[in-house]
Amino acid sequence: MVSTTAGKVIKCKAAVAWEAGKPLVIEEIEVAPPQANEVRLKILFTSLCHTDVYFWEAKGQTPLFPRIFGHEAGGIVESVGEGVTDLKPGDHVLPVFTGECKKCDHCKSEESNMCDLLRINTDRGVMLNDGQSRFSINGQPIYHFVGTSTFSEYTVVHVGCVAKINPTAPLDKVCVLSCGISTGLGATLNVAKPRKGSSVAIFGLGAVGLAAAEGARLAGASRIIGVDLNSNRFTEAKKFGVTEFVNPKGYDKPVQEVIVEMTDGGVDRSVECTGSINAMISAFECVHDGWGVAVLVGVPNKDDAFRTHPINVLNEKTLKGTFFGNYKPRSDLPAVVEMYMKKELELEKFITHEVPFSEINKAFEYMLKGEGLRCIIRMTA
Amino acid sequence: MVSTTAGKVIKCKAAVAWEAGKPLVIEEIEVAPPQANEVRLKILFTSLCHTDVYFWEAKGQTPLFPRIFGHEAGGIVESVGEGVTDLKPGDHVLPVFTGECKKCDHCKSEESNMCDLLRINTDRGVMLNDGQSRFSINGQPIYHFVGTSTFSEYTVVHVGCVAKINPTAPLDKVCVLSCGISTGLGATLNVAKPRKGSSVAIFGLGAVGLAAAEGARLAGASRIIGVDLNSNRFTEAKKFGVTEFVNPKGYDKPVQEVIVEMTDGGVDRSVECTGSINAMISAFECVHDGWGVAVLVGVPNKDDAFRTHPINVLNEKTLKGTFFGNYKPRSDLPAVVEMYMKKELELEKFITHEVPFSEINKAFEYMLKGEGLRCIIRMTA
Repeated sequence: MVSTTAGKVIKCKAAVAWEAGKPLVIEEIEVAPPQANEVRLKILFTSLCHTDVYFWEAKGQTPLFPRIFGHEAGGIVESVGEGVTDLKPGDHVLPVFTGECKKCDHCKSEESNMCDLLRINTDRGVMLNDGQSRFSINGQPIYHFVGTSTFSEYTVVHVGCVAKINPTAPLDKVCVLSCGISTGLGATLNVAKPRKGSSVAIFGLGAVGLAAAEGARLAGASRIIGVDLNSNRFTEAKKFGVTEFVNPKGYDKPVQEVIVEMTDGGVDRSVECTGSINAMISAFECVHDGWGVAVLVGVPNKDDAFRTHPINVLNEKTLKGTFFGNYKPRSDLPAVVEMYMKKELELEKFITHEVPFSEINKAFEYMLKGEGLRCIIRMTA
Repeated sequence: MVSTTAGKVIKCKAAVAWEAGKPLVIEEIEVAPPQANEVRLKILFTSLCHTDVYFWEAKGQTPLFPRIFGHEAGGIVESVGEGVTDLKPGDHVLPVFTGECKKCDHCKSEESNMCDLLRINTDRGVMLNDGQSRFSINGQPIYHFVGTSTFSEYTVVHVGCVAKINPTAPLDKVCVLSCGISTGLGATLNVAKPRKGSSVAIFGLGAVGLAAAEGARLAGASRIIGVDLNSNRFTEAKKFGVTEFVNPKGYDKPVQEVIVEMTDGGVDRSVECTGSINAMISAFECVHDGWGVAVLVGVPNKDDAFRTHPINVLNEKTLKGTFFGNYKPRSDLPAVVEMYMKKELELEKFITHEVPFSEINKAFEYMLKGEGLRCIIRMTA
């Protein structure tokens, strides 16, 4: 299948963020053809993740505008640039905010997914190949975001940031595997690795934390303790296998002590999905000595310091961090999609809202209000 | 073989510490017979470890005197108490400062060796069975130390703290496996688990650190970077596989930065054997993102705080602690002795001094001067 648009500039609609914190504006933009090692994708569905909102608000970062946000999405390859052999027009894909060059030490290591070439870069608003943007409006460049910019009917992505998936997978569901859900799921399945019958504490019951809980459920954990400052989240969390709830506000002692008492010495595993430094410390200190493993997922503030008494480490506890659930985007995501296809992994329960592209700002409103988990944005009517 | 002394009090010589920091005095003591789940051992060789000196100096702890120190040793079972079926008189054994009851959650876990019942207890100076000491001089009780008290011709030990070993193994060599050498060796082989061809940094080149280096050598690490404030240790360390040396005093930047530069991003594994909080932080921060694992072995001060930016964790580094090299004393030590018997593990190079029991205070002098690694104390002339 050769696209009739291959090699040509495509005019299409995109939701452009002109200024920090201001509603996105649907504009007609021009999308240049993919260059070497790039592919141009037609985005069918995208969803909104906290990271989009964080960089759109641009508090405490160098703002980069005008920009096209968006990084959780599903689409179809429209055309490929020079040297691209792994993908062809018509392939169903998930674009990913971090990549896999398959050549660097990280990509060659079985243990890492932090590709040297294509590791997430939130400051860069241009493509690697020529340092330019592929998006423009009347000649004015519009910046990219984390190499994906999926709030556009068409986008250009480095081939190393594109996972080719089962073409029968429904893109309006599996698009959420591009970021948050895989991050939480992989944190538990690939890093914490709870055994059947074990206990797991999950800090933060947003989409990432609930995906971590889903991972614990899939691994056969018998106690899944959800920790959140918002007790309203507890009912929803039961759908994700959470069996017990702790709201730290309800106690006059540190939550790690509460959990240690509940579990006669500590949980077997914990997964921290808030990014709060106190939650990180609690997550580490609430695991059992001898075998407990705490996994940090949430992204901390720049000036935070993780602080604990070293005896907590000496007592044979393990502290690990993970990035994108330790999944290598191209190598591992297709199998996660298959978990959904085999009905092991449930994705529907993460999808609480859906809006047409023209109403994309509603998705921002839902997230800012803390309403629901994932809002799917339909690109085509 | 039934001992003629079984069931009777044995009179023998022991080196008694009457006061903190004062030379030990060889006294004639009485050793009561072993009670339920206890064994009485004839100690043939013992060696001196820093932990003995630390509690003998009794700085910053509740002092417990008079006491019989000593916990690295090799001996022979003289008699066994009620209910002991695993050991019989004549068995060659290593007494260990921490135990394995084989019944608690830790003993049942594949991941832990921190037995609930017999985990090291430096405050307790009596036997578990009746809360009394088995040692006395003219009716005055003399306290035990970490359940072993091997600076005595005879001692009484809980059966869970006794590893039965190959009777052909030379006790004057394998006695050093009771504590420090196994601690360092296991930290690398069981916890850090460096791959063949990888890089390992070892912080602290005393006996434990050099045993950790020996573990890295056995695992096939290609770069073993020794870090110590005393450059005199570097020559000796080469015998243990150390290939490069860093003295943090020689640089005006943190040693973790030096190591990251030397290794183009960090070492694959690090093992911290000093107990200094700064070394612990350096050991963690010098490992490579994506796959680096830092293992803490050294015992910190009570008021220390381990402090690092959480992004170091998020970047897929792992921080682990270990206790006695994660070896389960009874289950795992016999195989470590076999590593020596097969000439894979070299122990002779750790043994730098030897004294008769009557000159045990010389062993303290060598250690206080930082001279040599292990001093073997011969109990019989």
